Amino acid sequence: MNRTESATAGSAVAGSAAAVARRARAAGRAAAAAPAEARVAALDALHRLLLDHQDEILAANQRDLDRAAAEALAPPLQKRLALGPDKLATLRDGVVALRDQPDPVGRLLRRTELEPGLILSQVTAPIGALLVIFESRPDAVVQIGSLALKSGNAVILKGGSEAADSNAVLVSLLRRALAEAGLPEDAVQGVQGRDAVAALLDQDACIDLVIPRGSGALVRSIQENSRIPVLGHAEGVCHLVIDAAADPARAAHLAVDGKCTYPAACNATEALVVLRGFLPQLPVVGDALRAAGVTLRADADARAVLPWAQPATDADPGTEYGDLTLGVHVVDDLDAAIAFVHRHGSGHTDAICTTDPDAAATFLARVDSASVFHDASTRFADGFRYGLGAEVGISTGRIHARGPVGVDGLLTTRWLLRGQGQGAGDFGPGGRRYTHRSLPIDVL
Amino acid sequence: MNRTESATAGSAVAGSAAAVARRARAAGRAAAAAPAEARVAALDALHRLLLDHQDEILAANQRDLDRAAAEALAPPLQKRLALGPDKLATLRDGVVALRDQPDPVGRLLRRTELEPGLILSQVTAPIGALLVIFESRPDAVVQIGSLALKSGNAVILKGGSEAADSNAVLVSLLRRALAEAGLPEDAVQGVQGRDAVAALLDQDACIDLVIPRGSGALVRSIQENSRIPVLGHAEGVCHLVIDAAADPARAAHLAVDGKCTYPAACNATEALVVLRGFLPQLPVVGDALRAAGVTLRADADARAVLPWAQPATDADPGTEYGDLTLGVHVVDDLDAAIAFVHRHGSGHTDAICTTDPDAAATFLARVDSASVFHDASTRFADGFRYGLGAEVGISTGRIHARGPVGVDGLLTTRWLLRGQGQGAGDFGPGGRRYTHRSLPIDVL
Repeated sequence: MNRTESATAGSAVAGSAAAVARRARAAGRAAAAAPAEARVAALDALHRLLLDHQDEILAANQRDLDRAAAEALAPPLQKRLALGPDKLATLRDGVVALRDQPDPVGRLLRRTELEPGLILSQVTAPIGALLVIFESRPDAVVQIGSLALKSGNAVILKGGSEAADSNAVLVSLLRRALAEAGLPEDAVQGVQGRDAVAALLDQDACIDLVIPRGSGALVRSIQENSRIPVLGHAEGVCHLVIDAAADPARAAHLAVDGKCTYPAACNATEALVVLRGFLPQLPVVGDALRAAGVTLRADADARAVLPWAQPATDADPGTEYGDLTLGVHVVDDLDAAIAFVHRHGSGHTDAICTTDPDAAATFLARVDSASVFHDASTRFADGFRYGLGAEVGISTGRIHARGPVGVDGLLTTRWLLRGQGQGAGDFGPGGRRYTHRSLPIDVL
Repeated sequence: MNRTESATAGSAVAGSAAAVARRARAAGRAAAAAPAEARVAALDALHRLLLDHQDEILAANQRDLDRAAAEALAPPLQKRLALGPDKLATLRDGVVALRDQPDPVGRLLRRTELEPGLILSQVTAPIGALLVIFESRPDAVVQIGSLALKSGNAVILKGGSEAADSNAVLVSLLRRALAEAGLPEDAVQGVQGRDAVAALLDQDACIDLVIPRGSGALVRSIQENSRIPVLGHAEGVCHLVIDAAADPARAAHLAVDGKCTYPAACNATEALVVLRGFLPQLPVVGDALRAAGVTLRADADARAVLPWAQPATDADPGTEYGDLTLGVHVVDDLDAAIAFVHRHGSGHTDAICTTDPDAAATFLARVDSASVFHDASTRFADGFRYGLGAEVGISTGRIHARGPVGVDGLLTTRWLLRGQGQGAGDFGPGGRRYTHRSLPIDVL
């Protein structure tokens, strides 16, 4: 398959946004109503196609890499762009793992007898049509496409232009897998270009959820330009509170792990909030961070014991540095620490280090963030580490899904009522009475 | 308490929208962290205050009613405005029922061992701060206020100006009940006026969810003017599909009940979609509807057997009549019926009448609406009838909550991780391994 062919098969640049969105809605409805066997068959086909067409995928990826080199793309972006045989094997393993998971669609959540012969069920259902926007990694096409397929959703994928060739081949293989399983191939559509995205963000009648996987600026810009709900995190400003009763070695380990294992991640620790009682031991933490190459931006109280730290300004609290820079701010007590987190945090993940069980319990109860930790690194806030399987994203919204989101975040529910001709007017004073009896859900 | 006093105590007209929203956020955080006993005590106090201050409530309501009469408000609106001793007794019963329900906050949903000594919990949590906009019924103040209180949320209530005096007294009693239980009284705030609402819709940093309870026009206008997620239904265009294999008497009963028991309700049936094979028996249904005073707007095929019906135009399909008018449209088969429902429905509630189990199963599987019924009236789509207890609203959105929404719709989740100093970098190749063991949730 050459580039032109794959673009024709896999992308929908030519179609108008409204047509793409309408096709997604129709395909999503068909996918939602299909039996679980069809979804399994499609993932099976995808696994095989990824293996059979490995050379084609690698060739397309090489074209993207050559273009990136010619355009002198930043080395970390070039690295994220690359698909090797190992990465493809990992992707295929993920497809198999997803195939073998229990079917998430149509799961019975609640069953209620309204009266004998009038039975209400609440069942899981796909959300419908998703728009997923991601940046350079072409692996995301397979990961997100297979998640959408498993959950019975239709998905419109907009990848970065730097990965155009890789994305086009992968989208075309996903569509082929759908077709082979008797599912509508429009359940996966690829689009290219910012104009296409802008137009799709207007299609709120046919697109139910936008999932931007990328920078905070991308997420914010989408939230401001669409009525469609957005699942994502605009910012990840995570704090580690070090209590007066913290173990210094443990605090040092949590600070270094939280900042250094992946400084650009949304769950990286951006600031230490240090209780005044811990100040005499703060140099233990400071020295460990300095040894790890971290630049500290500390307030005056902290600099009294960390004289080598840079002075923090009013702009530091709440900053998502994204690199090996860390804020250090001193507060009087736990109340002040919680107030600091609420004022400057983004509600993503905040942790406390303390040996005092009361302080830990207060922190876990009162901090209003998606993830709240005691004596664990903020870096654990992640769908894989939480054991959710494939990760859709991390949400700092409070509606629908909060924190790391697995396949459950791509589901909604439907209510089914099976009667024998009852009308609502048959019930009430002088008429029939509701029993509202909860029925077991482990049998159908 | 006179009108001026109650307005000072209960409403926040004077404060800016930003200050109201910030107070709601802070009060919501305090309410969320409070123990279940405080929420029970507040509902207990509310019950007592509603009884002790009954005369004051009725006097304020009488002032609203006098003003409504002087301004010649439409009689149905005057009726909805009226609070009598019976309605107040029902409201108090609702407060007691809510008080006695299990606490919905902090319920353990999932518990996972990431490794021994690193335990993840997912627990229910209040969403945070809600803005609820409703029209003439002052009973909504008590219903919504007590639901918010039970679920640990803060709520900003904007009622109709016609109920200003009643609302102000009820809001002030809710605030007093909160204060008596040691909870922040700003967990319930009342505001007045369209300008206040417009300004609050901008406060997306502090308000998490808007719940408009009113006309479709109100809901749409809010959706278009806010980045805050909206829970509600813009339209309720519900269909009854009459299969060729329908029992005519049952179809007639479902049509009459669906249209006539409350024509202005969002779950009222707006159109019959009749399979051609049923046409010979359609007059049975038509006669029953005519006897119930329903005006039919029928297409040419239907008028062949219902010659007295008005002719439908292209504008009829998808119309929410809201009165005793009903569309009648003939289709060739079940596929065409489902396509009609998808094209013209609003995804609220759609029903089929049939004695054919395959047709029923196909309809339940394929129709993409929040509620899908077999041989039951669309009017059953309602939180009370579903056995959900108090109803927050009915959602036609697919995110967060779908269909009739009970107290669960006011909850989100939080993730709590309790460790012993672990960092994410301690895991991985050569390091520790995740166990991801699912732990029982019935014990703590």
